[in-house]
Amino acid sequence: MDDPRLTPVSFLGVGEMGAALIRAATAAGFPVTAWNRDRSKADVLSGVSVAGSPADAIAAAPTVVVCLFDIASVHEVLDPVVHGLAGHRLINLTTTSPDGARELAAWAAAAGAEYLDGGIMATPPMIGTPNSSVLYSGSRHLFDDSRELLETWGAAEYFGHDAGMASMYDLALLSGMYVMFAGFFHGAAMVGAAGVPAKEFATRAVAWLQAVLPALTEYAEVIDGGDYSLPGQQSLYFSDLTDILDASRQQGISTEVVDVVQRLIHRQIDAGHGRDGFARVIESIKHSEAAA
Amino acid sequence: MDDPRLTPVSFLGVGEMGAALIRAATAAGFPVTAWNRDRSKADVLSGVSVAGSPADAIAAAPTVVVCLFDIASVHEVLDPVVHGLAGHRLINLTTTSPDGARELAAWAAAAGAEYLDGGIMATPPMIGTPNSSVLYSGSRHLFDDSRELLETWGAAEYFGHDAGMASMYDLALLSGMYVMFAGFFHGAAMVGAAGVPAKEFATRAVAWLQAVLPALTEYAEVIDGGDYSLPGQQSLYFSDLTDILDASRQQGISTEVVDVVQRLIHRQIDAGHGRDGFARVIESIKHSEAAA
Ligand SMILES: NC(=O)c1ccc[n+]([C@@H]2O[C@H](COP(=O)([O-])OP(=O)(O)OC[C@H]3O[C@@H](n4cnc5c(N)ncnc54)[C@H](OP(=O)(O)O)[C@@H]3O)[C@@H](O)[C@H]2O)c1
Ligand SMILES: NC(=O)c1ccc[n+]([C@@H]2O[C@H](COP(=O)([O-])OP(=O)(O)OC[C@H]3O[C@@H](n4cnc5c(N)ncnc54)[C@H](OP(=O)(O)O)[C@@H]3O)[C@@H](O)[C@H]2O)c1
Repeated sequence: MDDPRLTPVSFLGVGEMGAALIRAATAAGFPVTAWNRDRSKADVLSGVSVAGSPADAIAAAPTVVVCLFDIASVHEVLDPVVHGLAGHRLINLTTTSPDGARELAAWAAAAGAEYLDGGIMATPPMIGTPNSSVLYSGSRHLFDDSRELLETWGAAEYFGHDAGMASMYDLALLSGMYVMFAGFFHGAAMVGAAGVPAKEFATRAVAWLQAVLPALTEYAEVIDGGDYSLPGQQSLYFSDLTDILDASRQQGISTEVVDVVQRLIHRQIDAGHGRDGFARVIESIKHSEAAA
Repeated sequence: MDDPRLTPVSFLGVGEMGAALIRAATAAGFPVTAWNRDRSKADVLSGVSVAGSPADAIAAAPTVVVCLFDIASVHEVLDPVVHGLAGHRLINLTTTSPDGARELAAWAAAAGAEYLDGGIMATPPMIGTPNSSVLYSGSRHLFDDSRELLETWGAAEYFGHDAGMASMYDLALLSGMYVMFAGFFHGAAMVGAAGVPAKEFATRAVAWLQAVLPALTEYAEVIDGGDYSLPGQQSLYFSDLTDILDASRQQGISTEVVDVVQRLIHRQIDAGHGRDGFARVIESIKHSEAAA
């Protein structure tokens, strides 16, 4: 049931993620209007008014949540109706690059709309569960004033006025995830070549990676402290990955994924830092290869 | 206090790891003799008989645990006293390559000793805690017969008669870990260039990686099932990492770590598999670059 104390919200985009966002908002009592290019996806939602056009959806509520495919589809949908946005609050949850978010923020400002950009750290089924969080940046006022809505989707965290920051953070976390996945595939391929099923390896890999995750916090302390020579750290010399590379080669698999880490380690060793701790590897990444 | 029901054990190597192994064994009541090149490290252990030479240590117990620096130091210590090993049980916990472990197994067999190779998935302070596990391969008889000792160090798992398998598994898990660390450093460098402290990023990265770890098990199921086109998976097209690469470049950092993952993804897309699920990335690793 709509809660009369809550401000109406319109959604543009009822894809898998848009539908999950809408379900969470309606469950919390927000009066919701939704528009989708393929109207049938909006029609099946319960407790939602379906708008026949983006303009109608915008006119129906002061807050407009956008969750389309990419920045191009956002412009495709909103450019023709940009005048209707004046005085509205625009919350964009479509994934964009940091520069894309900044461009949209400037575009919204020119249209007289407040702008908040969000990066969703969840899959659709996770929306509204304790495992979901959404990172925001852009208008602090919009963030503060919309918390009740934002928190229907998961933990809501604000990363500053620069609208590109949430996306940057989102991409940084995603890069960690994709690289971790690649590391898992490497390990699974190593033992897989000896006949071990990936499922068996995954059981152990999940437990092992979980056990070593706290090391990230220790590395971060060293990085922020700026002294890579603090005692008690595993040295770069000790971290040489030759055994892993040799064993991978023996199994006949590609060594690319591990090669890059070995290269980062050895760039520091070659610069005379072999006795420093492993956290120094970040120094091999801080500057582009060209500059390094 | 030594438990007279338990078989005496001798340790060669009282480095950081050797000392931790010895402490756990003596705490459980095993009568322990220890030898170390630098004797002072053995002298400070309590409840332990110190041997003056490797030969004396071997003579003192039917089971000999070796935890030295690398395979070269194992040969340096044991080759001169190889005749004393006949009829003994040798448990090698020194990190070796899979081939190194196989070579030591053959060497021990020639000397008339049983051989078990172990890969320690723990740091010294973790030994004996629920977070510690040691992977073994080699003599099944020696593994089964020594479980009481092995379990003083952590969970003990057996990976088959091929003495190299524990090391292979160990290296596969370590590769996953090192690559995950590199992914974290990449993300920390991205937001770090915008002034975010590594510690702040680490807090979120740990939570995020923990949240996505179960995906490894889902990928493994797809890999073992052999059908990468199963519905419900994130496609390779959708996994394109261009946004991450562009944002990394904008931050002025190296893109190497993410480049390799993008390359693995695009090798599959280029082969016509863009609609398949992300798990197919393992196919880019299964064969060496030369063969691919
Ligand atoms: N799914 C996730 O796990 C996840 C996680 C984090 C962030 N996100 C982000 O959330 C956003 C939506 O993802 P999704 O999973 O909901 O994708 P989806 O299921 O593919 O939905 C895409 C939506 O965009 C609409 N659309 C695409 N091109 C359009 C255009 N040119 N004009 C008008 N509408 C257009 C689609 O309309 P039709 O129905 O008419 O095609 C649909 O509503 C993406 O930016 C995605 O990166 C998704
Ligand atoms: N530390 C860890 O987190 C960890 C984790 C998993 C596996 N491991 C493995 O455990 C093994 C031992 O590691 P550790 O941490 O104990 O290292 P460590 O503290 O450096 O100890 C090395 C040990 O090897 C001895 N040694 C080295 N070269 C020798 C030689 N030529 N002849 C005789 N003795 C020699 C040292 O004797 P001196 O005292 O006389 O120098 C010392 O007892 C390594 O193979 C390591 O990879 C360690």
